[in-house]
Amino acid sequence: MAGDQKKKSRMAVLDVIRQSESIARIDVAQETGISQATVTTITAEMLREGLIETVPSKDVPKDSQRGRPRVDLKLRGAAHIVAGIKLSHNSASIAIVDFEGTVVAECTPDLGQSVFEPSELGDMLHATLSEVCETAGMTLSDLSAVGIGMAGVVDATRGFVYWSPLLNGPNIDLQTSLEARLQMPVLVDNDANLVAMAELYFGEGKGVSDFLVVTVESGVGMGVVIENKLYRGTRGCGGEFGHTKVQLDGALCRCGQRGCLEAYVADYALLREAFVVGDMVQGDKKVAELLQAAREGDLKSKTIVTRASRMFAMGLANLINIFDPELIILAGERMQMDHLYAEEVIASVRDAIVKIDRPPPKVVIHKWGDLMWARGAAAFAIDAVADIAIERLCENAD
Amino acid sequence: MAGDQKKKSRMAVLDVIRQSESIARIDVAQETGISQATVTTITAEMLREGLIETVPSKDVPKDSQRGRPRVDLKLRGAAHIVAGIKLSHNSASIAIVDFEGTVVAECTPDLGQSVFEPSELGDMLHATLSEVCETAGMTLSDLSAVGIGMAGVVDATRGFVYWSPLLNGPNIDLQTSLEARLQMPVLVDNDANLVAMAELYFGEGKGVSDFLVVTVESGVGMGVVIENKLYRGTRGCGGEFGHTKVQLDGALCRCGQRGCLEAYVADYALLREAFVVGDMVQGDKKVAELLQAAREGDLKSKTIVTRASRMFAMGLANLINIFDPELIILAGERMQMDHLYAEEVIASVRDAIVKIDRPPPKVVIHKWGDLMWARGAAAFAIDAVADIAIERLCENAD
Repeated sequence: MAGDQKKKSRMAVLDVIRQSESIARIDVAQETGISQATVTTITAEMLREGLIETVPSKDVPKDSQRGRPRVDLKLRGAAHIVAGIKLSHNSASIAIVDFEGTVVAECTPDLGQSVFEPSELGDMLHATLSEVCETAGMTLSDLSAVGIGMAGVVDATRGFVYWSPLLNGPNIDLQTSLEARLQMPVLVDNDANLVAMAELYFGEGKGVSDFLVVTVESGVGMGVVIENKLYRGTRGCGGEFGHTKVQLDGALCRCGQRGCLEAYVADYALLREAFVVGDMVQGDKKVAELLQAAREGDLKSKTIVTRASRMFAMGLANLINIFDPELIILAGERMQMDHLYAEEVIASVRDAIVKIDRPPPKVVIHKWGDLMWARGAAAFAIDAVADIAIERLCENAD
Repeated sequence: MAGDQKKKSRMAVLDVIRQSESIARIDVAQETGISQATVTTITAEMLREGLIETVPSKDVPKDSQRGRPRVDLKLRGAAHIVAGIKLSHNSASIAIVDFEGTVVAECTPDLGQSVFEPSELGDMLHATLSEVCETAGMTLSDLSAVGIGMAGVVDATRGFVYWSPLLNGPNIDLQTSLEARLQMPVLVDNDANLVAMAELYFGEGKGVSDFLVVTVESGVGMGVVIENKLYRGTRGCGGEFGHTKVQLDGALCRCGQRGCLEAYVADYALLREAFVVGDMVQGDKKVAELLQAAREGDLKSKTIVTRASRMFAMGLANLINIFDPELIILAGERMQMDHLYAEEVIASVRDAIVKIDRPPPKVVIHKWGDLMWARGAAAFAIDAVADIAIERLCENAD
């Protein structure tokens, strides 16, 4: 069997086992289309390597009440432990997760700074991860991999950060730098992609093959899932939504271009407008005040917020026209951005899409904390660990 | 072997053979990852059914100058003949194509009308196809399938037309209606999707796994290819580009909504503007005059045309941000839309995308006639015929 095929079949078997709580060998064969004999060989290798384990069958078929007790296969949680990290402005969220996706420990340390040199970031992560591992009764060397999510434009295939507000320069090979410091595989991705991955593995996207995740924090992010896989684009920077243009020669964006969606929707966009009609305002608190004033009916505040919502709705409608997804998940942790998730926004999305004789895609709002983002980062690390484990299986099977 | 797996392996083998001019069995095994023994079994079935044929090997390996002469496998052109049809305003383009994709006959009949009842369309196609088959020394019953491309919103998986400017009503099950009249499988898709398919099989997209095709005729169409497959979306209406919004509360579009890209770029959009500054103008000829005047430096005409180009560039930049494709193909047959393909338009696309440390996607301009669109429709029909043939192989192999 060619090496590629060997890897493909092992990946397929592991994927099917991962997707179910527990599953019989015969169902693995059924779902992968791989012969039962090959499934038996492959799962024997995986059992030997400790990647999976057997558990009593969850359903005993009616016609075989006796004979050898049937067993199912499931992932072995202890096979690997990984860390998932979401880096934010001044803080991080860290989840220590086992191979089954169970959270073993978590913390949200204050970082005390928001822009890093790559080496500073390595030192900080080394210290913080060592600490959280200790609280969980482990050491840093017990981790098999680290997954990191951060805002910016990232080529996740090589952990290369074209640009991020959290790094002090463009074009940084963060993966290489952090792997040297942490002495284990490090994966880096755009944070919205990792939210999409978290939704795919254990959120609203479970069982949905094509969906979009749109995140609103201080920027607007997007993760695109097509056929159960994150879509990354050719250069690794696909799924960019915040800097799509909603107005020719429009408002100035922090990226230096004009008319980006972010330049109408993000907190700094709201503050720019508030600056015109009120006092010189700055910071999160002022955004909260502005939004509160709008809710209370203040005309100027409402005028500001309404356009942000309408631009956001127009952007979402464009995404639906382009992708025709099954589902759009609006994910965010900032309750203050509620105006973007309002029923009238969703209604105006529906008004602006191409009308056909079938219901429009479902739009769900999924608010969650930074730890969910960290779980997404952990899922990315688990993927990488599974990949490495499969490679080793293939070598040993030679 | 499970039925699904049986089908998958046969599809994989046929796909590999289709993608190469001719190929040795051992290379089929290599590329599909299917064992040589299974490839031999499957290709024997296909030879028996007449789907493929053997030809002398194109390369004789140095170390085996004697023994049984090596043979390659290729598609057998005569296995199936299909028709591909592009329906346009008042006319159609028809290509009769064999299983290898070779054009056997072609014609571009005048239809004398631009809006049809489904039954009228069936009668017209029956007559026209009979005629073109006759000129090629065949009869209608020699065709294995018909593929049809038309502007509009189409769910190609079931040949259901939600809306098309060529039909006299919405929500028409065109596939069922035409299959009853033509007595063979009929496939219906949005025409831009079929251009994308033509580019994928025998155009600029050959060997490119992720690309977009944007077409400009009287509307703006798009076909999206992801991982060598046309992306259709959940309801079959994905890849809509012409009705994405480029301006909140913008210009009125023929679709009844405001701010659609088409409402700034299409011929009717140009005429709307010309109406303001000049005499009451109508029709293609007037568009040509307007564009010519702009080229000659007429200020008002230039003002009209420039905005159209800039809106088009903004739309393309948004697509690049969203998809990060390897390639964008601007395909069209109307030389008169040249202003949209101008170097300064492509340059302003590059200015409006997220900047990273790698070259932007390639943008190529591929002008071709309606017959190329018809070849795309034929490719769609060949896909369907191959699918049916594989189903039969699987049944016989039971």
